Amino acid sequence: MPEPFRIGLLGHGTVGGAFHELIAARADAVAATSGRRPEITGVLRRSEGDFDQILAESDVVVELIGGTNPARDYVLRALEAGKHVVTANKQLVAQHGEELFAAARESGVQLRFEAAVAGVVPVIRVIQESLAATEMTKVFGIVNGTTNFILTEMARTGASFDEVLAQAQELGYAEADPTADVGGADAAAKMAILARLAFHTPVHLDDVSYEGITEIQPDDLAYAKELGLSLKLLGVAELRDGGFSVRVFPCFLYRGHPLAPVEGPFNAVMVQAPAINEITISGPGAGGMATATAVLGDVVSILSGDAPVHDTQRELAMVRDVSSSFYLHLEVADRPGVLAAVADVLGQAGISVRSVVQRGSGEQARLVMVMHDTPEAAFYGALDELGKLDFMRATPRAIRVIEAEFPDPVD
Amino acid sequence: MPEPFRIGLLGHGTVGGAFHELIAARADAVAATSGRRPEITGVLRRSEGDFDQILAESDVVVELIGGTNPARDYVLRALEAGKHVVTANKQLVAQHGEELFAAARESGVQLRFEAAVAGVVPVIRVIQESLAATEMTKVFGIVNGTTNFILTEMARTGASFDEVLAQAQELGYAEADPTADVGGADAAAKMAILARLAFHTPVHLDDVSYEGITEIQPDDLAYAKELGLSLKLLGVAELRDGGFSVRVFPCFLYRGHPLAPVEGPFNAVMVQAPAINEITISGPGAGGMATATAVLGDVVSILSGDAPVHDTQRELAMVRDVSSSFYLHLEVADRPGVLAAVADVLGQAGISVRSVVQRGSGEQARLVMVMHDTPEAAFYGALDELGKLDFMRATPRAIRVIEAEFPDPVD
Repeated sequence: MPEPFRIGLLGHGTVGGAFHELIAARADAVAATSGRRPEITGVLRRSEGDFDQILAESDVVVELIGGTNPARDYVLRALEAGKHVVTANKQLVAQHGEELFAAARESGVQLRFEAAVAGVVPVIRVIQESLAATEMTKVFGIVNGTTNFILTEMARTGASFDEVLAQAQELGYAEADPTADVGGADAAAKMAILARLAFHTPVHLDDVSYEGITEIQPDDLAYAKELGLSLKLLGVAELRDGGFSVRVFPCFLYRGHPLAPVEGPFNAVMVQAPAINEITISGPGAGGMATATAVLGDVVSILSGDAPVHDTQRELAMVRDVSSSFYLHLEVADRPGVLAAVADVLGQAGISVRSVVQRGSGEQARLVMVMHDTPEAAFYGALDELGKLDFMRATPRAIRVIEAEFPDPVD
Repeated sequence: MPEPFRIGLLGHGTVGGAFHELIAARADAVAATSGRRPEITGVLRRSEGDFDQILAESDVVVELIGGTNPARDYVLRALEAGKHVVTANKQLVAQHGEELFAAARESGVQLRFEAAVAGVVPVIRVIQESLAATEMTKVFGIVNGTTNFILTEMARTGASFDEVLAQAQELGYAEADPTADVGGADAAAKMAILARLAFHTPVHLDDVSYEGITEIQPDDLAYAKELGLSLKLLGVAELRDGGFSVRVFPCFLYRGHPLAPVEGPFNAVMVQAPAINEITISGPGAGGMATATAVLGDVVSILSGDAPVHDTQRELAMVRDVSSSFYLHLEVADRPGVLAAVADVLGQAGISVRSVVQRGSGEQARLVMVMHDTPEAAFYGALDELGKLDFMRATPRAIRVIEAEFPDPVD
């Protein structure tokens, strides 16, 4: 009879329930490979269970409550008591990571959280283990399945954001309160975690700038389709200008970009490093059973060895003004001189235009423009100026554009 | 001063040299995270160095000689001496894995080999660690960069296999003796390793059936382009019919298949499991520095903990006759009754035809057909019969076809 590996389970919602099922189904297989049989020895539900007793009777604590309170308190107490911890809680790790990593180091126990970012897509393991020995320069991708589902459906059907959101809620791809997903905060927390691990520097969640997809219009997606572009909510963490930058924003990708074909509620993350060129990992970004599988993967890793190390090695500066290429959508009065006036504002700000198309006429007249790379602060300054022009019939809309990046393969 | 972690390096070719460079560049960073500084304390070159002395002075042995002899002997002796081993040697692991895993278990040391399959694309870590807790049902993908480069260029330029091979050799994407790559044996060894790890069953390399790409004609690629298909050399390991199957074969993929856009010397592997749907990982499949990075990743993993477990849990039967869908290319005399005769042979064998197109006329007449799924033995029997028909002007050519597989996302 293999020795049990005792799991104290905190939280018993969708993921907690799936994890419970998974343990029942896979305990024997795990015992056969690892020599110890995982067993759930205590469950803390909202109205049932005693944390101290569960803690005393477990070798590892699995936190699936979500939110930071009381999750932070429970996780800290578990680590301080010398118990390993596995969590799927991105807010907890993004907001209190340094404190938790320090507690884990202090007690010599493991803190694992693969399921906190991109569900079962093993981006954390790849960054922390596979690429531990290389200098990573950029981590970016689609880390929120809800918004990717919504953008995919908007592009496919031409429906509005609100219509598709309602449909996503019905299908269970969006929560009753979708604010964190569609506003970009969820992706921001995930990108903060990835930046922290890839660049070995503390990242404060408040420093991560993010935009969501609530302002995206069917128009934008229609133009995108015509131009062969696809629209994604991207998280981008990169080393630049001697510091680093972490941002979340909706963005057009050219056809041929490796992330362009990622559709529906899937996640995909690319990691770039000079020595390895780039690695792309994709798969389902959520779902109770997929998330539970990632959690059990972490439990098995704890069974089989020591933790990856969470020390930060340096304190990099957060770079705030980065350069981007933009698509610009202007609803304008249909009269001579309009393009000249727009071009003048852009020229004054040092912004160079790559393409301009006029669409419609009269009340429907629109200028659709794509800019070359330009510092974002200068661009947004110019955008304000454009909004003040008397022939502008609506607030100008801008969306970033990223061209395909295909570095040559290393040989 | 952190304690050194002593590396005995066997082999100093392209990868060995890159690994040496990488250690020089990254030793401090590794020391900062792991607490021990990797140092190369001995190098065994073809004509220089003493294995026993290198062994005595190392904590880990890194084997980058390639081939099975003397690599097998060195690795066994290192494991028996209680040293961890990292190797990039797919033939060694594919042919002698069970013996080496047993030696590692016996001595309580680690044997790691991420670089043996798909270079720095971390498919072994994902299978052994991220998905350790789930039942994997299929692992498949593009695991040979040389052939993927050749097929990509043949499709792009219309040139023949021989022409593109010569070009690949010039560019360093193919070796002087390309037999193992273009004949499929290299991919077969890699798929044997992946099947072994995913299905926890011993896999004998001799049981892996493989075909290469040497018979692919520009014609085949031209038709493929017209039909929106792309041609890849696929490795497929899957559970089926209560056993498992491991095969390597050229195959048409429908547009929209996740592997269809993988071009040039890149590798991509998909892992399917009911609980997680599927994960796709892609990146550069070779190159000295990328491979060396994967090797150093393994060294860092050894520094930070215990080994993944290599026990087999079961002994599954290898299934030999599987069903596939085929494309069939027949050069025929241009006369009435030809199609009827061909259809009769196929019908007798129980093979159902999905589409037929006649191309050209007179001396150029060809029938291009796509079949529905059919047991391969029956199909190849029919192919023999077709070859005997008196109006056949050349040996019939057949290539497998795989349709897009998009399981619904788990919710």
